[in-house]
Amino acid sequence: MKIGKSTVPRTAISTSDEHSISVRGEDLCRDLIGQISFTDYFSLLVTGQRPSAGDARVLDATLVAIAEHGLVPSVQASRMTYAAAPDALQGAVAAGILGCGSVILGASETAGRLFTEVSELAGDAGDLREAAATVVKRWRAAGQAIPGYGHPLHKARDPRVARLFEVAKEAGTSLRFVQIAEAVEEVIPAIVGKDLRLNVSAAIPAVLLGTQFPLRALRGVPILARTAGLIAHLAEEAVAPSGFALSYQATRELVYEGKEPRK
Amino acid sequence: MKIGKSTVPRTAISTSDEHSISVRGEDLCRDLIGQISFTDYFSLLVTGQRPSAGDARVLDATLVAIAEHGLVPSVQASRMTYAAAPDALQGAVAAGILGCGSVILGASETAGRLFTEVSELAGDAGDLREAAATVVKRWRAAGQAIPGYGHPLHKARDPRVARLFEVAKEAGTSLRFVQIAEAVEEVIPAIVGKDLRLNVSAAIPAVLLGTQFPLRALRGVPILARTAGLIAHLAEEAVAPSGFALSYQATRELVYEGKEPRK
Amino acid sequence: MKIGKSTVPRTAISTSDEHSISVRGEDLCRDLIGQISFTDYFSLLVTGQRPSAGDARVLDATLVAIAEHGLVPSVQASRMTYAAAPDALQGAVAAGILGCGSVILGASETAGRLFTEVSELAGDAGDLREAAATVVKRWRAAGQAIPGYGHPLHKARDPRVARLFEVAKEAGTSLRFVQIAEAVEEVIPAIVGKDLRLNVSAAIPAVLLGTQFPLRALRGVPILARTAGLIAHLAEEAVAPSGFALSYQATRELVYEGKEPRK
Amino acid sequence: MKIGKSTVPRTAISTSDEHSISVRGEDLCRDLIGQISFTDYFSLLVTGQRPSAGDARVLDATLVAIAEHGLVPSVQASRMTYAAAPDALQGAVAAGILGCGSVILGASETAGRLFTEVSELAGDAGDLREAAATVVKRWRAAGQAIPGYGHPLHKARDPRVARLFEVAKEAGTSLRFVQIAEAVEEVIPAIVGKDLRLNVSAAIPAVLLGTQFPLRALRGVPILARTAGLIAHLAEEAVAPSGFALSYQATRELVYEGKEPRK
Repeated sequence: MKIGKSTVPRTAISTSDEHSISVRGEDLCRDLIGQISFTDYFSLLVTGQRPSAGDARVLDATLVAIAEHGLVPSVQASRMTYAAAPDALQGAVAAGILGCGSVILGASETAGRLFTEVSELAGDAGDLREAAATVVKRWRAAGQAIPGYGHPLHKARDPRVARLFEVAKEAGTSLRFVQIAEAVEEVIPAIVGKDLRLNVSAAIPAVLLGTQFPLRALRGVPILARTAGLIAHLAEEAVAPSGFALSYQATRELVYEGKEPRK
Repeated sequence: MKIGKSTVPRTAISTSDEHSISVRGEDLCRDLIGQISFTDYFSLLVTGQRPSAGDARVLDATLVAIAEHGLVPSVQASRMTYAAAPDALQGAVAAGILGCGSVILGASETAGRLFTEVSELAGDAGDLREAAATVVKRWRAAGQAIPGYGHPLHKARDPRVARLFEVAKEAGTSLRFVQIAEAVEEVIPAIVGKDLRLNVSAAIPAVLLGTQFPLRALRGVPILARTAGLIAHLAEEAVAPSGFALSYQATRELVYEGKEPRK
Repeated sequence: MKIGKSTVPRTAISTSDEHSISVRGEDLCRDLIGQISFTDYFSLLVTGQRPSAGDARVLDATLVAIAEHGLVPSVQASRMTYAAAPDALQGAVAAGILGCGSVILGASETAGRLFTEVSELAGDAGDLREAAATVVKRWRAAGQAIPGYGHPLHKARDPRVARLFEVAKEAGTSLRFVQIAEAVEEVIPAIVGKDLRLNVSAAIPAVLLGTQFPLRALRGVPILARTAGLIAHLAEEAVAPSGFALSYQATRELVYEGKEPRK
Repeated sequence: MKIGKSTVPRTAISTSDEHSISVRGEDLCRDLIGQISFTDYFSLLVTGQRPSAGDARVLDATLVAIAEHGLVPSVQASRMTYAAAPDALQGAVAAGILGCGSVILGASETAGRLFTEVSELAGDAGDLREAAATVVKRWRAAGQAIPGYGHPLHKARDPRVARLFEVAKEAGTSLRFVQIAEAVEEVIPAIVGKDLRLNVSAAIPAVLLGTQFPLRALRGVPILARTAGLIAHLAEEAVAPSGFALSYQATRELVYEGKEPRK
């Protein structure tokens, strides 16, 4: 069935023949394996270019920042899935990744879109704080939440935020989006009525948009990072199971609010 | 509902309070973000210890080797899923990961188990080739395929194999499992009746089992690596769609073998 | 970690003890197994009430209408996943379901929301066609596609549409949303500039919203229906594999647009 | 890339042109929509034939028996996933289905294979109890668990078992596999050393293998059934959220067993 206009698939990422594999214009075996770190390779795959040392350092920092935060809901879902289906590690990883959605880890991409809107509105010479206020009001008027601010556990600023901003400074990448993220933080209390602080989901686009990493692949960063954390949890689950214990605890105080059958 | 014996969940990976996050006994913000590469962090998460430089180099090489090989079936499944459900990047990544199964990318773990069996049988002083022959015969007798040998495209040895073995030599990690993998390759023609050469799925455990990376997390390596490739493909799909073109092409020569309705 | 306000989980669907299982106020073993069809049970689970005979007939008709349409993209993704990971049937089903997104099968729910908006605007006495025009213009102004109109294969009205409308008439359920769906179809050419005909994704909410089935569970109908189709395809794949043949065909005319490695 | 021998995909399930859709040799619009229940259609899709009234009644009974059992682990995983990613209902359903694995709901298929082995060994005239003992011993010797016996909550026989057996009797389908399932239950205490009673996962193949439903699609029955239950839970989650409350409860007694960072 023909859906859409194009009927010929195209790609610019990779091609291969019997003797070699090319990725983004480099010979996988000659130029990449053993020559390039996985982080640099991820950047090359996504952008088509090897990252600068500074860009790579920032990307590494974001991946490390978001990979692991204990038994969060998506890790629980993954460990319960593994306990029920231990033959299919890939299924348990997939179940965990499916929780990287708009509410939890997907906020990175939405926050990146918010910051890009502020940047475009301010232009080269505009006032970032003014532009931030305009955009935050616009999102609120459209009924959209402001993504990347506030955290259930870290009420003061999420400790990862300051560290990521420091790394960006040390790495010498552009700080424009860090400034935008802070401008948004400043205008939030007056517009939203709550003092919501930057969390890691906003800090990630704040530092990455100052590198060559593209907005449209931002949601990939928490997904890739969490995959590493999920694999560690599933390797632990395989020898020290907690999946069913989690589900037992989860329902200890469960309230049934439905009807009882007639006697 | 209580399933299994334990009712208290436990973990040794991470804990946190309002002000700090600890991972494997290190302070995430102070010791890890900006200080450690994502590859080293993956190794720390899985094993509980930072890898040696040689171990990290081998892990990087395996992740780079297996992350991308063009529009393989799991990438096609992922791009088709994204075309149908573009709001949910995480779903398209999950669909791609679900294809990391026993036939395609899961062979790394099974090959790792084969090699471990050979290693244990040979012990310190035994002949690897003899042990390899015994174990391959045993697996064949039990009706199990020999995982990690043969490739649909790379009929001679998959070019990634030699490169991974070179990297392991350069990195100075143990070559015991490389020797075992080659011993298995040597005995296969006589036992299986086909000259199947080592492919990348066998080369990965061959080099990684010579490091501290544990057998039980081996299947995580192709899963993490492919996640990076999938994210790149989905970032491409977002601007240059091929998902529906792939599905159109896939059925151009489809044969319907069922009944026709009565007129 | 506490996310959100509530810390006590609640449910009104089911409870159980060692000797019995209650679902929606009925005893599963005494009142339901062997007494009620799976379609009636689905309705009971979702709404808390057994459906009337007419409501059940319409729900059956929608489930039958959308369960199967050959090797569509999500079925291809599912069969490729099964070919790669045959040990995990659940993973292949999940991969297929992940393609029930906003572009393909999720349109049922969005079309349901469109129709509800028209219904609310028209109120009891209003003109449906006028209300339809207002709402379609509003959606277009907000940059939203009109879901459930047009089909890549069925250029005239999708043949399932008329049949579903007939069934609703025969079943005696409310035709208000059928009328709304047809009003939307009438106003589309003048507003959108294309003569897009009602497809099955709009016909499903058109008939179901005339029953007790709730808007918020509408996307569940294509998901449940397709699961039946996917299981049939995977049972076929297990004995007559086509997954890898599909992926081979898909890339026969693949164009590589990237760079070549230097020599 | 060519994987496997066949390069031409084939199917016997469905075909279509611009004006009609055929499924299993019937015209979807003329013969099926509004004429056939979803359960009968599921059977037609899987087997290629409409079920007899008795076969359909047994299939309905099994689907109703296994669709819902409260906040079991896979439902928890699904609700947590929905809480984190509410835009992607399909992802939350997929996460729930991924828990239909070898330990929990996949046992139906494995039990079906066990019973088929007993049936083949006994042949037409053999003693079922003797054959059951032989097969159970064989599975135990191979280190395989006996699937479908024992339940964490229902220590006496799962109440669904007797009801499913009654329905099969009432429906007049073959009781051979019911007898085999009971023969296995009788021999278990002496061989396994525990008095494990038939649970619903064994009762499902026991009754379905007495109909035309094929062994290789058995795992599809709990998957399809649970999808209905999951959709009901997600429709509840959308208006009465419990996903994050479940994850909060799950970790209230979490024990951290890892190292603390140095001061």
